[in-house]
Amino acid sequence: MQRINLAFLGTGNAIPTEMRNHTGILLGFKNENILFDCGEGMQRQFRLLEISPAKLTRIFITHWHGDHILGLPGLFQTLAMSNYTRKLKIYGPRGTNHFISIIKELLMHINIELEINEVDEGTVLDEDEFKIEAKRMDHGTPSLAYSFIVKDKLRLNKEKIKKLGLPNLPILKNLQDGKDIIFNKKKIKASSVTYRELGRKITIILDTKMNEKAIELAKNSDLVITESTFSEEEAEKAKEYMHLTAKDAATIAKKSKSKALIITHISQRYEHNLSAIEKEARKTFKNTKIARDLDILEL
Amino acid sequence: MQRINLAFLGTGNAIPTEMRNHTGILLGFKNENILFDCGEGMQRQFRLLEISPAKLTRIFITHWHGDHILGLPGLFQTLAMSNYTRKLKIYGPRGTNHFISIIKELLMHINIELEINEVDEGTVLDEDEFKIEAKRMDHGTPSLAYSFIVKDKLRLNKEKIKKLGLPNLPILKNLQDGKDIIFNKKKIKASSVTYRELGRKITIILDTKMNEKAIELAKNSDLVITESTFSEEEAEKAKEYMHLTAKDAATIAKKSKSKALIITHISQRYEHNLSAIEKEARKTFKNTKIARDLDILEL
Repeated sequence: MQRINLAFLGTGNAIPTEMRNHTGILLGFKNENILFDCGEGMQRQFRLLEISPAKLTRIFITHWHGDHILGLPGLFQTLAMSNYTRKLKIYGPRGTNHFISIIKELLMHINIELEINEVDEGTVLDEDEFKIEAKRMDHGTPSLAYSFIVKDKLRLNKEKIKKLGLPNLPILKNLQDGKDIIFNKKKIKASSVTYRELGRKITIILDTKMNEKAIELAKNSDLVITESTFSEEEAEKAKEYMHLTAKDAATIAKKSKSKALIITHISQRYEHNLSAIEKEARKTFKNTKIARDLDILEL
Repeated sequence: MQRINLAFLGTGNAIPTEMRNHTGILLGFKNENILFDCGEGMQRQFRLLEISPAKLTRIFITHWHGDHILGLPGLFQTLAMSNYTRKLKIYGPRGTNHFISIIKELLMHINIELEINEVDEGTVLDEDEFKIEAKRMDHGTPSLAYSFIVKDKLRLNKEKIKKLGLPNLPILKNLQDGKDIIFNKKKIKASSVTYRELGRKITIILDTKMNEKAIELAKNSDLVITESTFSEEEAEKAKEYMHLTAKDAATIAKKSKSKALIITHISQRYEHNLSAIEKEARKTFKNTKIARDLDILEL
C-alpha cells in the first residue's frame, strides 16, 4: 500500500513561539507533495526537516488570515532561486486570486509559474488515485476545510493470476480496471482475480467555529487533523473568535466516526499545560494526540 | 555612558538556513528600540531572544527586497494582538509608502498606528541625544544605508562642581548646555567645569554593490556592520548581483577609518567555511567578526 507521509511544519496559532511556528501541514503521496496552509517562516521549517520545498506540487489554503499565509511570498522567492521548474498549483477559497496578486505586487514579481484555483465546496481536485474534497467553514472570512482521499483500488491477486497462467500483458490492466476478459477462449471475471485495497482519508479542519459541515466532511476519516485554539473553559471565547475548543475537535472526530484525531494550532497559553487539552479531548474521543512542530507521521 | 545594545536577529541572506534567519538587526539605546530590516520570521527571533517586540519604537528599512521585509506583516499582526499602543515609526527609501499600503491590503487591515517616513540621503532623524544619517546605496532598487550616531555630550565634572559649592539647581543645566553662568557674583565658565563625552557611531550597510558613499557614510564609525554575500573569488558575481564581497566589506571598514567590522547576510554556501570569509576580510581589516543569529553585543 502506498504510504501517505505527513509532516507538521507548524503547529502554533496566531502568535508563534520558540516551540511552534505558524501553521503548515505537508502531505506526501506518491509524486505529490501538498502543503496545507503556509504561515510565516514555512521555508525555514522545510529546512529544519531537510525537505526540499522544490518538491512541492500543490498548496491548499484554508483561509487568508496572516498566520496561515504569510510564508507564501518567501516560499515563492526561495523556489525561484532554487530553479523550481514545475507549475505550482494553488487552491484556496474566494479571494485567492486577489491575495496572490497582492503578493505579486509586494514581491514586485513572482519568478515561478503559478496556477491559481479559486475553489468552493465539493470535489476540488480529482486525480487517478486520489481526490480532495472541500466544505465551507465558519471563520468570518471565506474558509474551507479539506479531505485528502486516496481512492479504493482493485489489486490483482498475484497467486491466482499465476495459477491461471496469465501473462504480464495489457489484459491484466483490464482486470485491474474491473473489466472481465477472455483468455485462451475462457472468460475470466475481474472479481475472481482481484481484491479491493481500501483507500484512506485524511481531513484537515483549520480555523473555524464548530459546525455540522466539519463533521460531514470528516465522515469516516482515518485521521482528522483539527485546530483547537481554546479549551472548553473558554468556550465562549472560542465562539466569539470563531475557533474550535479541544472538546469541539473531539466531537468532530467522534461524530464523524473517524479513527484518529490530531490537534494542532495550539495557543501559547496552553504550551505548559498540553495534557489538559489532551485530557479534555480524550474524554470525548480517546485516540487523540497533540501535534508538535516537525512531527512526522506515516499512514 | 549610556550603552548601545545590538541584537543580531537574523544574519542569513536570501535563502534562510537552519542556522540563519533572514536579516534583522535590533539596536537599543535608552528608550529606543530600533529594528534595521525585518526579514521573514523576525517575530519568532524576538521570541528566541526573549525580547518583546512591543518595545519597538522604530523600524528602518534598507530596501524592499523580500528577504529584508517579509517579516513586517506578521510583526504588525503580533503587535496588534499584543496591545501595542505606540505609534510605530517606519523609515525607508522611495517606495516605502507603496509597499506599506500593499501589506495593508494583504492583511486586510493593520491594527496598529504607523507613521511612514520615506527618506533619502542626509540626516533622516535628529533627536536630542542621537541622530540617524543615510546614504543611497547601489542595489538595483531604491536602497539606503544608515548610521546611528550618539551625539557628543557635555558632562559636569562633579568634583569641580562640589568644590565650587554649586547647588543642584537648573543653573547646572546651563553649564551642561555649554553656557557660562554667574554664581555668587562670580562668572563660572562652562568649559572649566565640564568635559566632553564622545558619542559613538554604528553604520549599517546592507545589500549593495561596492561604492564610495558606503565609505563616506561609515567615516570614523565605532562599528561598521555590512553584508557580505560573496567571497573575493566570486567578485564578478558580487558585481552582477550588486552585493559586497568580504574584501569589499573590509575595504569599507579600513578606508572609513572605522574601529570594528561585523559581517552579516552570510550565504549558505559559506556556512561550513566561515573562516575563509573571516580570513579574507582580516587581510584588509583586522578587527573583523562574522555575525551569528542571536548574537548580542554591548557598545
